[in-house]
Amino acid sequence: MSGLDRASPLPVLTGAAPLLERAVGCPSVRRRSHWGWGYEDERPSLGELRAAAAGLAAHLGFGSAEPAQPMPVEAVELPAPRVALPPGLPLARDAHTRALHAHGRSYLDVVRGFRGEFRHAPDAVATPRDEGELRAVLEWAAGADLAVIPAGGGTSVVGGVDARPGRHAGAVTLSLRALDRVLDVDHVSRAARIQAGATGPELERQLAAHGMTLRFYPQSFELSTLGGWLATRAGGHFATGPTHVDDLVESIRAITATGATWESRRLPASGAGPSPDRMLLGSEGTLAVITEAWVRVLPRAAERRGGAVEFASFAAGAAAVRAIVQEGVRPANCRLIDPREAALTLAGDGTAALLVLGFESSGAPVAEQFDRAAALCREHGGAVREGRGGAAASWRQAFLRAPYVRDTLVAMGVLTETFESAITWERLDAFVEEVTGATRAALGPEGLVTVRLTHAYPDGAAPYFTVVAPARRGDEEEQWLAVKRAAAGAIIVAGGGITHHHAIGRDHRPWYDRQRPEPFAAALRAAKSALDPDGRLNPGVLLG
Amino acid sequence: MSGLDRASPLPVLTGAAPLLERAVGCPSVRRRSHWGWGYEDERPSLGELRAAAAGLAAHLGFGSAEPAQPMPVEAVELPAPRVALPPGLPLARDAHTRALHAHGRSYLDVVRGFRGEFRHAPDAVATPRDEGELRAVLEWAAGADLAVIPAGGGTSVVGGVDARPGRHAGAVTLSLRALDRVLDVDHVSRAARIQAGATGPELERQLAAHGMTLRFYPQSFELSTLGGWLATRAGGHFATGPTHVDDLVESIRAITATGATWESRRLPASGAGPSPDRMLLGSEGTLAVITEAWVRVLPRAAERRGGAVEFASFAAGAAAVRAIVQEGVRPANCRLIDPREAALTLAGDGTAALLVLGFESSGAPVAEQFDRAAALCREHGGAVREGRGGAAASWRQAFLRAPYVRDTLVAMGVLTETFESAITWERLDAFVEEVTGATRAALGPEGLVTVRLTHAYPDGAAPYFTVVAPARRGDEEEQWLAVKRAAAGAIIVAGGGITHHHAIGRDHRPWYDRQRPEPFAAALRAAKSALDPDGRLNPGVLLG
Repeated sequence: MSGLDRASPLPVLTGAAPLLERAVGCPSVRRRSHWGWGYEDERPSLGELRAAAAGLAAHLGFGSAEPAQPMPVEAVELPAPRVALPPGLPLARDAHTRALHAHGRSYLDVVRGFRGEFRHAPDAVATPRDEGELRAVLEWAAGADLAVIPAGGGTSVVGGVDARPGRHAGAVTLSLRALDRVLDVDHVSRAARIQAGATGPELERQLAAHGMTLRFYPQSFELSTLGGWLATRAGGHFATGPTHVDDLVESIRAITATGATWESRRLPASGAGPSPDRMLLGSEGTLAVITEAWVRVLPRAAERRGGAVEFASFAAGAAAVRAIVQEGVRPANCRLIDPREAALTLAGDGTAALLVLGFESSGAPVAEQFDRAAALCREHGGAVREGRGGAAASWRQAFLRAPYVRDTLVAMGVLTETFESAITWERLDAFVEEVTGATRAALGPEGLVTVRLTHAYPDGAAPYFTVVAPARRGDEEEQWLAVKRAAAGAIIVAGGGITHHHAIGRDHRPWYDRQRPEPFAAALRAAKSALDPDGRLNPGVLLG
Repeated sequence: MSGLDRASPLPVLTGAAPLLERAVGCPSVRRRSHWGWGYEDERPSLGELRAAAAGLAAHLGFGSAEPAQPMPVEAVELPAPRVALPPGLPLARDAHTRALHAHGRSYLDVVRGFRGEFRHAPDAVATPRDEGELRAVLEWAAGADLAVIPAGGGTSVVGGVDARPGRHAGAVTLSLRALDRVLDVDHVSRAARIQAGATGPELERQLAAHGMTLRFYPQSFELSTLGGWLATRAGGHFATGPTHVDDLVESIRAITATGATWESRRLPASGAGPSPDRMLLGSEGTLAVITEAWVRVLPRAAERRGGAVEFASFAAGAAAVRAIVQEGVRPANCRLIDPREAALTLAGDGTAALLVLGFESSGAPVAEQFDRAAALCREHGGAVREGRGGAAASWRQAFLRAPYVRDTLVAMGVLTETFESAITWERLDAFVEEVTGATRAALGPEGLVTVRLTHAYPDGAAPYFTVVAPARRGDEEEQWLAVKRAAAGAIIVAGGGITHHHAIGRDHRPWYDRQRPEPFAAALRAAKSALDPDGRLNPGVLLG
């Protein structure tokens, strides 16, 4: 029994207007929550919150139905800034701005923010309106010996934007959010030049005026930015084919710590030496500040076909997904949800694994491909129910609302975490078992660990794990760390990658260092030293 | 009138047994031509050569019908080796081996080799049989202060494997050819671990024993190796989708100049920092010596559909190709040949541009995709003739034989060169006109410049130019350089990339330096210094 296209009984999942429509309002006058997800005008009222908490507590069997209240920003005590602000630069340091940029939006970030703990508040936040101002900020930071933390939406879930000074005298967060425009649209080649600070809704609104779309929907879509996606190799809309933002890039423009311009040539493909773009992709703000990029865009999808398939087990569904991609069928959506996660998210009743399957194109026919995928699912024991896009649309809406739900869970005293990996097919079943087992052991008897496949490749897939458990209030950090260590350690030992699309930041460093070839680490450190001799950009992330 | 599936009247194109079958013989006892393409037992007899030359001269309207003879290796005078050989290492320095490894197989390399000029003969050629021997060679080279030139098939057309010592006391070519085995085949994930020195036919023969294929056919397929493809970001079989070898890589293993092991984790995808593999891809032997890789393999194609389409003009054909890829249709073969090139290669009579269109998959249906592509071609004025793979097979056979034809042209005193680029669609027509015009002006009135599109992307395509002209005998170097300067200069000014899949080597350096972002060049130099502090690996290529 799939429930993906029926209304969710949880008000927090359905009470708000659809996010894609709402979020394209007028971002400049909307204020972000200083501790949790999204904009303050998007947050549930106290009544809505209580109703949501009651529903969630009943559904989970744990968590307080009477949610706690976050510390208001007026009550937060921030350390005194360590640096004087010069006139003429686009700098701010009011408490809300500093708290907002103190860290990202991982579970622990939200827990700490909820309590009013902002250990890494920047000494100032710079929001340059052009590259001239950006260079001036870098020059000031060099003179004042400040670390510079490039930030887009600030939604890192891996400690990638904490405003930590490292060995410097202070830290300034360099927000790209004022650089939010689509500068050029090339209809012939279907590409657009977009500034790094444009969020998902902002760039989609501007592209829509040209009849185009980027069609890139990470879960952080509402707040995160093109520059952030590039810097962290974000994963987007497509479950097969162009899964990462890497695949959408024609060229990247960036400014180094010393003010030099790094701009690659706009090309559909190249074989000229190691790719310059691929060195910036995933560099997490440590090598240069990305200011804009040419990316591939699409017209709205012209052809669509999709449906949902139920399988008796996750393994049966995974075998079907493997058959689909190995035959050369390329669904846009191909997400396989295990029975526990289907029950947790109310997409199913917990008796079946659920595959959400969607095909789309800019004109190429998709019927034959869908029919073949459906036939392969049936061959693997799947029960196929074709839908006309409703399932995928509901799924996307719920997917994009999930970060708001997490805030409610934190208020209820519930630990909630997600982590993801990638692994080749021949190791997938054992990998899921080992990682799930290690995580559950660290979590204790009440905890839930569920899994889905978010992206599929001919040679493997990306398993995505969700963890929900009663939080040990006041001891969340130790509790989280034990779970993280168990999960990440199991991932590395079982042969997976420490991240498929969440990036490294600081949280993944110990396991990234085990995964990364040591000579490559040496090469990257040398490149960093050449570009940023004072180690000013995002110290402690990836390197150092 | 397309002639792609009729027998070619040129004996040199048809006189030999099909290359794919012949080349999988017993490579260890076959001797390579010291100056031209391929193996000595594959070369035409004097009678065949004369017949070919007569046919080619009549067809072109220039070139001597009485071909000259190359200088035999016994008559070649090589400089005395600059270094003593230690015992116990897999080293050789007979004249044939040194001449064979003195340079690659560019037009000028072949001209010089034909005349017995080997300016950059290595002092020795090392052919290690395992990584232990490879490390021992590196250690010896460090002690003797030798440059180390990693080489696979030695087929560089851009001066990428010249055994130049740079500032070192001598040069040793490090041939990977003894590392030619397929070590593992994973049928579940469809991947194989293959040693870097395996040539196309060698790895295909071994994969075929497992029912698998890599399906990667650069024009140098017969001689070039997996490691060479990786080091130069080679372009292969697929005209859309996985066009470069980059797209087939799961992980790469390499040894640095100081003997450290660089091995990435075998993963279907990753978002963990900048990609280590993408730093080695295109590094052209300057950062480390690639010893093996896990690559994605396929079963033999199960579904195929193809045909040939004639268009009144190249521009009309290009518009059709753009419509095909922008709708999301993904042909495996999608090569558009301009009327002059169709006439030159006897694929047509010169009145029409010709599109070779082929679809294939490992099981996914392709009929709907082919039908849609054919309909788009008709909408753009194309005359579609469906074939059952004959056109594509003939085309591939002629394509792989072309390097042998070049040797004949050199013996006839004909200059022949190819160069390629990539450009976004909105600039394609002007780009082709400017590059063709500049090249023709440098070439003189008798010269021919033709163009084809070898690879197609949603945002652009890869134009591939072929040049044929009477050589100025004895002055080929200046003549070639003038043409190269005109062509490469026009490519860079018109916004293209200096190479789509031929690599940089030394020949493309001046234009690569203009294309490459300067901060990236600084980062790459720093990475090189960290990995290879003495600058021993392939000095002068890409860097330095």
